[in-house]
Amino acid sequence: MAQNIYDDAQFFDGYSQFPRSREGLAGAAEWPSLRAMLPPLSGLRVLDLGCGFGYFAQWAAKAGAAEVVGLDLSENMLDVARRNCADLPVRFARADLETAALGDGAYDLVFSSLAVHYLADFDSFCARVRAALVPGGSLVFSMEHPVFAARATPDFVTDAEGRMVGAVLDYLREGERLTNWIADGVVKHHRLISTTINSLIAAGFVLDHVEEWAATDADIAQHPEWEKERYQPMFLLFSAHLSAPASA
Amino acid sequence: MAQNIYDDAQFFDGYSQFPRSREGLAGAAEWPSLRAMLPPLSGLRVLDLGCGFGYFAQWAAKAGAAEVVGLDLSENMLDVARRNCADLPVRFARADLETAALGDGAYDLVFSSLAVHYLADFDSFCARVRAALVPGGSLVFSMEHPVFAARATPDFVTDAEGRMVGAVLDYLREGERLTNWIADGVVKHHRLISTTINSLIAAGFVLDHVEEWAATDADIAQHPEWEKERYQPMFLLFSAHLSAPASA
Repeated sequence: MAQNIYDDAQFFDGYSQFPRSREGLAGAAEWPSLRAMLPPLSGLRVLDLGCGFGYFAQWAAKAGAAEVVGLDLSENMLDVARRNCADLPVRFARADLETAALGDGAYDLVFSSLAVHYLADFDSFCARVRAALVPGGSLVFSMEHPVFAARATPDFVTDAEGRMVGAVLDYLREGERLTNWIADGVVKHHRLISTTINSLIAAGFVLDHVEEWAATDADIAQHPEWEKERYQPMFLLFSAHLSAPASA
Repeated sequence: MAQNIYDDAQFFDGYSQFPRSREGLAGAAEWPSLRAMLPPLSGLRVLDLGCGFGYFAQWAAKAGAAEVVGLDLSENMLDVARRNCADLPVRFARADLETAALGDGAYDLVFSSLAVHYLADFDSFCARVRAALVPGGSLVFSMEHPVFAARATPDFVTDAEGRMVGAVLDYLREGERLTNWIADGVVKHHRLISTTINSLIAAGFVLDHVEEWAATDADIAQHPEWEKERYQPMFLLFSAHLSAPASA
């Protein structure tokens, strides 16, 4: 079972202060990039894995999705999500993405924002996402960038020549890493870009696009506090699809 | 035009001392991984881009390739390559991979070892490789891993807690980087994994496998000097193919 850190009161309070918690998608720096990787939502059945406060589910419903289902492990998050999506064609349920069955050909699009780095078994996740999708269905997701996840300390350090560098520790050692982020002892799973991609391919996905998200000049003009996002690859975004049957 | 550093006498002499220069493929730590990504060579027409001393071309010819063509910018390398492949069905020619036309549907496999990080325009390279291949043809190549290429210094540094960390400088800033490696002022082009993959996809390739090469326990038992290769992703390996026509 994945760690349910979002139901830890201290963690949840801290997380709730983040711009992406208070402002929704507009507060998530990588959202415009992720949105650009999505197919037109109109009429689609959408599954949101690690739905958090339900901001994407809300957006998808308003963008014309026929059906949106959001799953999350945290009761705290689901409570807020349900409030955020009242009166919209969205359903939420509690599920551990590490093991939950996700449906059988029930969805056209699976979306997941910053959730898979909490999962130990990404192959299992990919296989269950594949089963949840119709042939030709799409998967769009983001995760912590492994170069960021492997940092010895979350902050940059200054090298002997006064340059701001990221201290990458044991990048090639995959697996569980304890991080002190908001609360102590948060369990994340460090997974290489290559491992992530090979798991997708092994599960039958064709990779369409990868993005190591970086802030643009325009982003930084609007959000000067994102300046460091020029230097560190914090987010990694993927889109992929299943082949449609030859007769389609 | 790409920098022709391998025809610099100091660089060439230094490079010639490396295990991969003296011992051939057996001296290249990543070769077993790269070999595992290759299709069976028997009967294939093979193009080797940045063929260096011709060790891969020699191996491919002995593995049954019908035809092997090796291209390189360095006359020094080509001289050695020709000697290494005397009496084999291998041809070598001088070419700048930055701009050279590579043929028109003339090859079943394009191979390239540690060459593309010398090229400024990877999109152009991918388009010319695509043109060189038959439909269904394969591309297998390696490059310097961008986490390694972006290091502020080639060596590890020790952090405040005594841990060996890699100091990654400006990972997200792509483009030309001058490196002092063997000789001063070697021009390499830092390119993200995502950019590399998106260029392949844009050129019509389907990605099959990615490997961020790491030494295994067995590797290190045989080559104790590779111990550091557990920690730093020095090599990045890719295999991809072009779709075959539906009528094939």
